[in-house]
Amino acid sequence: MATSRSAEIRKDAVQNRWVIFSPARARRPSDFKAKPVPNPNSKTQTECPFCAGHEHECAPEIFRLPPESTSDWRIRVIQNLYPALSRELDPPPNIECGGGPVTVTGFGFHDVVIESPAHPIHLTDLPPAQVADVLLAYKKRIDQLRALDSIKYVQVFKNHGASAGASMSHSHSQIMALPIVPPTASARIQSMKEYFDQTGKCGICQIRQDDLLIDESSHFISVVPFAATFPFEIWIIPRDHSSHFHDLDSDKASDLGRLLKLMLVKMSLQLNNPPYNFMIHSAPLQIDSTQLPFSHWFIQIVPQLTLMGGFELGTWCYINPVFPEDAVKVLREVTIPN
Amino acid sequence: MATSRSAEIRKDAVQNRWVIFSPARARRPSDFKAKPVPNPNSKTQTECPFCAGHEHECAPEIFRLPPESTSDWRIRVIQNLYPALSRELDPPPNIECGGGPVTVTGFGFHDVVIESPAHPIHLTDLPPAQVADVLLAYKKRIDQLRALDSIKYVQVFKNHGASAGASMSHSHSQIMALPIVPPTASARIQSMKEYFDQTGKCGICQIRQDDLLIDESSHFISVVPFAATFPFEIWIIPRDHSSHFHDLDSDKASDLGRLLKLMLVKMSLQLNNPPYNFMIHSAPLQIDSTQLPFSHWFIQIVPQLTLMGGFELGTWCYINPVFPEDAVKVLREVTIPN
Repeated sequence: MATSRSAEIRKDAVQNRWVIFSPARARRPSDFKAKPVPNPNSKTQTECPFCAGHEHECAPEIFRLPPESTSDWRIRVIQNLYPALSRELDPPPNIECGGGPVTVTGFGFHDVVIESPAHPIHLTDLPPAQVADVLLAYKKRIDQLRALDSIKYVQVFKNHGASAGASMSHSHSQIMALPIVPPTASARIQSMKEYFDQTGKCGICQIRQDDLLIDESSHFISVVPFAATFPFEIWIIPRDHSSHFHDLDSDKASDLGRLLKLMLVKMSLQLNNPPYNFMIHSAPLQIDSTQLPFSHWFIQIVPQLTLMGGFELGTWCYINPVFPEDAVKVLREVTIPN
Repeated sequence: MATSRSAEIRKDAVQNRWVIFSPARARRPSDFKAKPVPNPNSKTQTECPFCAGHEHECAPEIFRLPPESTSDWRIRVIQNLYPALSRELDPPPNIECGGGPVTVTGFGFHDVVIESPAHPIHLTDLPPAQVADVLLAYKKRIDQLRALDSIKYVQVFKNHGASAGASMSHSHSQIMALPIVPPTASARIQSMKEYFDQTGKCGICQIRQDDLLIDESSHFISVVPFAATFPFEIWIIPRDHSSHFHDLDSDKASDLGRLLKLMLVKMSLQLNNPPYNFMIHSAPLQIDSTQLPFSHWFIQIVPQLTLMGGFELGTWCYINPVFPEDAVKVLREVTIPN
């Protein structure tokens, strides 16, 4: 695979990140398929607190869908029983980014979205309309959290599989509300503002290269990014410029639910159901959308196929053995069984 | 462990990185001990190309120690058979950091330091003087590489254990010479310059807090950093201000060899021989030391005890379940068996 290519170093202008594409380390796509691993964290339905009937074993519920449902809920948003940040602490003052070490209270919110009441159902098993409901649950919770001045950023993410960080096998995603703007969001804003100042254009609106397009829908496109950090990484991008994920409406959620499910199914079929993460990259909260012509939200999907070693930890450069031009072919070729 | 603490968010002023310290996720130190895993990459001595007698199976040698040795070599520095970067390509022009995507040739060097001729010998099994020789081999190779104007940074790192990224079980480390300054080095320089401009002091020279000191030697100290990114992370820092690792002399190498071995042995004993990485963080090459009163090299040692999940990938903030004040006690307490 890709043996005719020379090594390249590409800079992802969105994330301001360098990636080394290395044909000497290339393998065939089949070599990337995940090996089936028994999930040591998997619980049976009778032991899992996320299953219907075990609601009392969980930390407090924030809301459920449908709102008035009893035992027939479809989605629950709850507090994390082991939150990394604490809603009980005082919010820190606005943090100046001067030199020197800083310590602030670990204030914040750490919530869990249970995507289905049934233990064996993964996100890819849900009908597209319920994937859309999961997305709308994220939006609803973000709308609650962004009403607080002390919350500067909300990170929505999903860990699927123990080696991707999922400590519970029951399908769920997580929402963390932070009192700081994280480095990825600051770097993204800075990099995309620089591009906008030079060109008058949003760098993500410019991502329209047919050669890296996987699929498209009415409101979204899915691509392998030009300087993908990880092999078979996928981005789903709104066609129209939009800085914040929480601007999603029901119509677009429905469209996105279909495309997100399609991408996860394709990835799963081609790479043997790998552990994966997805992250929603949005803009910082306390900035008005009209001030952000250069910031465009997207979903990043990362199958966990490679390890972080000392090179990546030391440099924050990444080595990707699969050129995006090859990865996109693999993700396009797949036929979804009926 | 640490149940009386509240969650904290700390900023590491050296790396300009945010870390969440989370007592709700704290476990006892024994819970962090690595589980013994058979190394699927381990080869027997008869199959391993890094073993003495198999030199002809390796990519070309760069040098060996002692220089004139034949079958009795102690250390070999060789080319990587599967290099991530290629020394055959043309060096890219100096890269402007403007907006927009960038592609340059994958020019660079990717070398391997075989730390011992014998397969079962790990770095921690070597006498301190030979660990010092490994450090001096790094220095010698960096001195060769920095003579090239096209090389902007050299990353020295070691992966120990398959899950830390080691594809060969025979003890070795790696040297990558890059045509760019990686984001970690740029961020470090910028953050430490800011601190210097405000205080007139080098931020790393200031790391002298007794409460986080593990050990010290004539020329070095070892500490758990104030905002450690990872549980039980260790830094080894030269006492005297020094911007570049390659300024190491034989006397200091000998002292550092002892302290590095001691730290790896302590970590191994307390955490059940975990997979680990270490990285040497130095200053960019094409800047004279005298212009860098704010840049101070150090070694970062990271046992691989936690997973990267969607939160870390999404934000580049980290969640550390072990407060540095607790980690340092565990690393101090250990008694080295005779």
